[in-house]
Amino acid sequence: MMSVEIIVTGKIKEKYIKEYAGEYEKRLGGLCKLTVVELDPVRLCDNPSQKEIENALQKEAAAIKAKIAKGAYVVSLCVEGRRLSSEELAETLEKNALNGSGSFAFIIGSSYGLSKEIKDMSDFKLSMSEMTFPHKLARIMLTEQLYRAFSILGNSKYHK
Amino acid sequence: MMSVEIIVTGKIKEKYIKEYAGEYEKRLGGLCKLTVVELDPVRLCDNPSQKEIENALQKEAAAIKAKIAKGAYVVSLCVEGRRLSSEELAETLEKNALNGSGSFAFIIGSSYGLSKEIKDMSDFKLSMSEMTFPHKLARIMLTEQLYRAFSILGNSKYHK
Repeated sequence: MMSVEIIVTGKIKEKYIKEYAGEYEKRLGGLCKLTVVELDPVRLCDNPSQKEIENALQKEAAAIKAKIAKGAYVVSLCVEGRRLSSEELAETLEKNALNGSGSFAFIIGSSYGLSKEIKDMSDFKLSMSEMTFPHKLARIMLTEQLYRAFSILGNSKYHK
Repeated sequence: MMSVEIIVTGKIKEKYIKEYAGEYEKRLGGLCKLTVVELDPVRLCDNPSQKEIENALQKEAAAIKAKIAKGAYVVSLCVEGRRLSSEELAETLEKNALNGSGSFAFIIGSSYGLSKEIKDMSDFKLSMSEMTFPHKLARIMLTEQLYRAFSILGNSKYHK
């Protein structure tokens, strides 16, 4: 069974968003060994300088790195990444599970994104959309896509 | 004030998804005249034939067409559509509000998508992602993007 870690900088406070994310996490957890890690974002003032943002991203990067499972294939989500269809995401998972450790870490950044360091150390940069989504919604979108990808690989009926 | 109509074939039953969609509808409703129209999808068996799917899409198209506001700029969501960034979506809204009626209709299809007729009659085909998302999630994604687009146009702080 493949292992999937979803590392998110930012927590979900709203009960209804928690339930929505939880629903896909439950389903995905039935198809792989799933771990979701929620990290605290660094607090910034309302109009942070570029330097303050970079410092915050650097601190967040250290916390993220400490959580990535050893040997995992690291996928960071960023708007400049490669766009894949649901089927291509499934193929990417399958190919890397066959050639690698079968362990994946997906990383979603805070509202200012991810540091260059995290992007550079990633095995794959994935973009779900050209549009910018809030991290909570991106987390649900990613979890749904991973559930869909595993459903495609398992030939289940979820994906028509 | 611009008018936005979101026409969705499919209803939301889950309370938590309703709350999530409702949150963005409330916010978006503060920035434009918003109407959300939920239509019933045609019920199909588990393994419908291509012909059955086409018939269902045709019936759904008739219901959709009856709901599109007269003179609205029609945007249908489909995976083969044009991909826009959040900023480009805002520009598209602004440009068409200046040149047109200021009324927009966004159409999200059922789980089998939209009929060719609806796509062909649309002024714009929009793709939010190369990935396939369930219509309930696509609805939240679209509403969030419209809220973001209006925030960009209004120079609010929502969109950094």
